[in-house]
Amino acid sequence: MRRIFSSALAAILLAGTAMNSNLPADEGMWLFSNPPLKQLKAKYQFEPNEAWLEHLQRSAVRFNSGGSGSFVSPDGLVMTNHHVGADALQKMSDADHDYIATGFYARNGADEVPCVDLELNVLQSIEDVTEKVNAAVKPGLPPAESQLARRAIMNTIEQESTEKTGLRSDVITLYQGGQYHLYRFKKYTDVRLVFAPEKDIAFFGGDPDNFEFPRYDLDICFFRVYEDGKPAKVEHYLKWSEKGAADQELVFVAGHPGRTSRLNTVKHLEFMRDRVFPTSLNVIRRREVSLKNYADKSLENSRQAQDELFGYQNSRKARLGGLAGLQDPVLMDAKRAAESELKAAVAADPKLKASANVWSDIEQTLLIWDGLYNENYLIETGQAFNSDLFHKARTLVRMADESAKPNDQRLREYRESNLDSIKQELFSEAPIYPALETAKLADSLGMMMEMLGANHPVVTASLNGKSPRERAAELVNGSKLGDVAVRKHLSEGGQKAIAESTDPMILLAKQVDAAAREVRKSYEDQVEEPLRQAYAKIADARFATLGTDTYPDATFTLRLAFGEVKGFEENGKQIPPWTVMGDTFAHAEAHGNVDPFKLPESWLTQRGKIKADTPFNFVSTADIIGGNSGSPVVNRAGEVVGIIFDGNIQSLVLDFAYSDVQARAVSVHSASIIESLRKLYDAGALADEIQGK
Amino acid sequence: MRRIFSSALAAILLAGTAMNSNLPADEGMWLFSNPPLKQLKAKYQFEPNEAWLEHLQRSAVRFNSGGSGSFVSPDGLVMTNHHVGADALQKMSDADHDYIATGFYARNGADEVPCVDLELNVLQSIEDVTEKVNAAVKPGLPPAESQLARRAIMNTIEQESTEKTGLRSDVITLYQGGQYHLYRFKKYTDVRLVFAPEKDIAFFGGDPDNFEFPRYDLDICFFRVYEDGKPAKVEHYLKWSEKGAADQELVFVAGHPGRTSRLNTVKHLEFMRDRVFPTSLNVIRRREVSLKNYADKSLENSRQAQDELFGYQNSRKARLGGLAGLQDPVLMDAKRAAESELKAAVAADPKLKASANVWSDIEQTLLIWDGLYNENYLIETGQAFNSDLFHKARTLVRMADESAKPNDQRLREYRESNLDSIKQELFSEAPIYPALETAKLADSLGMMMEMLGANHPVVTASLNGKSPRERAAELVNGSKLGDVAVRKHLSEGGQKAIAESTDPMILLAKQVDAAAREVRKSYEDQVEEPLRQAYAKIADARFATLGTDTYPDATFTLRLAFGEVKGFEENGKQIPPWTVMGDTFAHAEAHGNVDPFKLPESWLTQRGKIKADTPFNFVSTADIIGGNSGSPVVNRAGEVVGIIFDGNIQSLVLDFAYSDVQARAVSVHSASIIESLRKLYDAGALADEIQGK
Repeated sequence: MRRIFSSALAAILLAGTAMNSNLPADEGMWLFSNPPLKQLKAKYQFEPNEAWLEHLQRSAVRFNSGGSGSFVSPDGLVMTNHHVGADALQKMSDADHDYIATGFYARNGADEVPCVDLELNVLQSIEDVTEKVNAAVKPGLPPAESQLARRAIMNTIEQESTEKTGLRSDVITLYQGGQYHLYRFKKYTDVRLVFAPEKDIAFFGGDPDNFEFPRYDLDICFFRVYEDGKPAKVEHYLKWSEKGAADQELVFVAGHPGRTSRLNTVKHLEFMRDRVFPTSLNVIRRREVSLKNYADKSLENSRQAQDELFGYQNSRKARLGGLAGLQDPVLMDAKRAAESELKAAVAADPKLKASANVWSDIEQTLLIWDGLYNENYLIETGQAFNSDLFHKARTLVRMADESAKPNDQRLREYRESNLDSIKQELFSEAPIYPALETAKLADSLGMMMEMLGANHPVVTASLNGKSPRERAAELVNGSKLGDVAVRKHLSEGGQKAIAESTDPMILLAKQVDAAAREVRKSYEDQVEEPLRQAYAKIADARFATLGTDTYPDATFTLRLAFGEVKGFEENGKQIPPWTVMGDTFAHAEAHGNVDPFKLPESWLTQRGKIKADTPFNFVSTADIIGGNSGSPVVNRAGEVVGIIFDGNIQSLVLDFAYSDVQARAVSVHSASIIESLRKLYDAGALADEIQGK
Repeated sequence: MRRIFSSALAAILLAGTAMNSNLPADEGMWLFSNPPLKQLKAKYQFEPNEAWLEHLQRSAVRFNSGGSGSFVSPDGLVMTNHHVGADALQKMSDADHDYIATGFYARNGADEVPCVDLELNVLQSIEDVTEKVNAAVKPGLPPAESQLARRAIMNTIEQESTEKTGLRSDVITLYQGGQYHLYRFKKYTDVRLVFAPEKDIAFFGGDPDNFEFPRYDLDICFFRVYEDGKPAKVEHYLKWSEKGAADQELVFVAGHPGRTSRLNTVKHLEFMRDRVFPTSLNVIRRREVSLKNYADKSLENSRQAQDELFGYQNSRKARLGGLAGLQDPVLMDAKRAAESELKAAVAADPKLKASANVWSDIEQTLLIWDGLYNENYLIETGQAFNSDLFHKARTLVRMADESAKPNDQRLREYRESNLDSIKQELFSEAPIYPALETAKLADSLGMMMEMLGANHPVVTASLNGKSPRERAAELVNGSKLGDVAVRKHLSEGGQKAIAESTDPMILLAKQVDAAAREVRKSYEDQVEEPLRQAYAKIADARFATLGTDTYPDATFTLRLAFGEVKGFEENGKQIPPWTVMGDTFAHAEAHGNVDPFKLPESWLTQRGKIKADTPFNFVSTADIIGGNSGSPVVNRAGEVVGIIFDGNIQSLVLDFAYSDVQARAVSVHSASIIESLRKLYDAGALADEIQGK
């Protein structure tokens, strides 16, 4: 399982939010501001106090490249998954150094390698600003004006908060519009690599074993955050458990689940089944195939494409599992039954009667969305222009235009409080490979021609009388945006510099911008805002009838999940809750010891050194999803007993509904981390730091 | 490049047919009944006589699994490509014997391994039956009646011919309806494997090197046809050239190009660009990804899926190349210009005036096709039911119904003269793997739900209230059709046995048959027949204005192509016309010696034995396409100088237009075949047989 956002994948992924009325015991991705105290007390007789919760909250780290992590030493040491760190590892690698393949260990601080554009966030506070946001949006306004008013107040709240506190401040939309919370984060942008194992053991079993259990992966990676050029001193960090997770033990997960859609209406789920998932899967598969083809041409091509390729493979498997859920009548019938119940409750309550129409309002809105879908997907989210250079060009073009406007009138992502994060990515020194860019862009331009037709004005404008392949080569070879200095120069020059630029990518971004903004506006006014308003009513109805003792759909913000270490039954066989390190070798042999079941030299040559019965990976009933990768798993004492890195194949329907029958979160056991560092990687100093020795 | 038909791929591939008015010198896939005598004389001063042509025609062999070959000894020895033979190799393999991976050599006749269902055809005669067919279709009939009348006369002609001659007899539609020729074939169904190299050298470079040049592949395979349990004595077979192909030498290719669309109207090409190719590519990619996922789970899964997976990879690359051509304004503008010229000629000729409307007739017909497209593709061609068991069930159900009708009223494929070939496949002992069947069927049922919607009656009937995965497992696990005896019993029992069967696959095939037949009828009456009639008029106009000195689009029937051995320029670099065996090792090393660039033991350990400068693969300007794989390449003396196995990436637009600027056919050189057999495979006896020693 994977970090959820990468620049390439972000827009393929889905919007959405949903939830059951009767929470099974271990269900929930809970807000730290509304934790599952009743549930924990009732089932586990555990009553965490505020200090316990705050300590865990402040020890949790968000990887903005898409994933989770945690502080595990007072000196700013951050633990995450190898596959979450891979984005950073890929960007610091070149033809001579492949950190993903070889792994890395910095024996001392001077050897720690700076990441080129990684931003880490630590949640400091949560403030409910729902009333403030809603007060700014006068009732009865047409949706287009509501949308502008809402955007203005959100931009303003964030900017005021950033100015007041110096913290990154984001207004988060919860319950798809039911609530708005202001999240303040401490931000770290000087992040350095400390340790990574080889990919062959971090992602042992590769795509075939991804989302499977039993499993044998050392999917870990350590970074360190710096402030003023020195390791940051952090007040909150997680202590290491001496024993690690035990069978049937209660465990907690603090992390950043990406997106779930449990609160979606049935029609909305059907829209995802019929439109959203099939479209994204077709795109994911075509990119997977196209990238694989590029990668297979040479070893260097393979190195360049590996992280992105993994991302598509991972998304494909996750989406297929989600789609299988949506195509399963058992799940959909349960959703229908729950919806009927809520509708009946609304109809019976005179105070809620006004909300009786929202389900059909949503259905109507989805028809509008359907009509806009391809244009929005291709032109505004940029799927037609699958190129880092293009996305940098668009950022430059839009940042120039948006920065010239007052903050409250800007597109959300160009709000004043977010510009630093945008620039962190825009000015990244991450390498851009022209041949890879050309292959990706040619394929996506061709895809646009297929999906919009050869005569669509944006298609003809983008292709400029050339074939997709020829046009892609011309754009990539002609652009100078691969040079960070050129990007900085254009950024500093503002609208004038952009207007005068003859860079072909800048020209293309300018040329399609009017059409892109137009479809975005249609989407925001006619889809996003009506959905927000409708879901706000559903949320109110839900709170009124089912209580507020619940949790919103995942939004890639910090959540608390819990569950117990527990095996499961599959095809009539009981799967034990954990694997042991010694069995890794047999798993490799059963698959012929060939990639992706080829173990690294460090393991093959030092096999005798490790304690074979050390627990390696384990499963629990905690409610997690993509984005939780790298989340710390802690015990009642708040000590690290493991780290989330995957869910099993049965967990993929958790997008839509929780289940603990077979669905399981998969973690690396804390004991195997120490055992590997000490016995296989000669990294005793790092193990000492983690264990506080 | 690949044989074109496999049961799984056949229906993904495209119908269509097209051609330039001014034939460049080496253009053409010529009928043996209308050979390019003028062109050969004008450019090469070569005048083959009838005996020369007949000898080549009767030495050429069609592999009905999808590919070409030739007799190369008087004892029925047939040479083809490894990738053409792979279908047979796969079907004779099991968990303990993987003929594809290990290769094979029968030192004597007793060791030759029978293929389970391979049928080879050798063309004996060609008869023009256009007048007979057209006479049976009265002018002015509504299309539905024309369609029935045409089917009746074709079924009848074939049956009469088979009864009279004992030969397989097929009426071939040429020029998309402009001509009808009766082809009579001698049929061989006892075919045995003689020699195959290891896949690692037969398909060295795998998918990344497929459709590329320079190239280093020993893509050959030898079979022997038997009659009455003994090697067949054949009168016509090709002698081996002592020296093989030389630079700039004139060469000929006799083989079975699958499908081209050079004579399609521009609107028809646009329909292929916008509808046919994108649809088939999405399906090919999803199957490639899904099969790869299945294959990666274990070594045995990989063995089961390897041939089918290669087929999808090959098709995907071929289709992508074709689509790139259709998306290239240079190609499309040339097509537009040629069409305008023909239209002008038609408008200017009073005798042709009646044909002036056919272009708009075709455009209207394509709109109808568009509306039928998904239902026909999924339900009638069976893409929704991607399972060998289902296709056997459908064959049983339909054969029972059709066999009960008079021959002239049957669906084309169940005409009396074709039943033996149908049974050859239906009663094949080729293994069927339940887990693979389930994975494929689940994916295709899900695809149908995506493409037709969850509430389409065929979707709900097929799924029967289950999810696609659950339903697929239930169907595959419950069916007994994997047992050949069960299939034979049902076949012999006719309609009564089918009516009484409770096998879930039979039940499914019966349940969807009415809907499938209905959409087929709509397609045949409203699309196929109007297109035939329109293209017949275009063909007449073309013959009238441009002459009959031309060739029809490819139809997987025997054609003659010619050209010269000649390198090409790519990215400003001159690519020599051939590679040598010694450079194979460097190519492996440059790619890390890992799969698919891993050489077999036979090559690695005996490297010193081979003459390093032996020509290995070479390119020529001959006009070939998928289906030509395995075609013999002969010199003026009719001697084998090589065997076609691929086209370069620039050749993929040959679907639509010939070019000799960069497009090249790729062959294995005859010298490398002898060198390998004698030095690496200890197969001197086989080399002696080929060389007539």
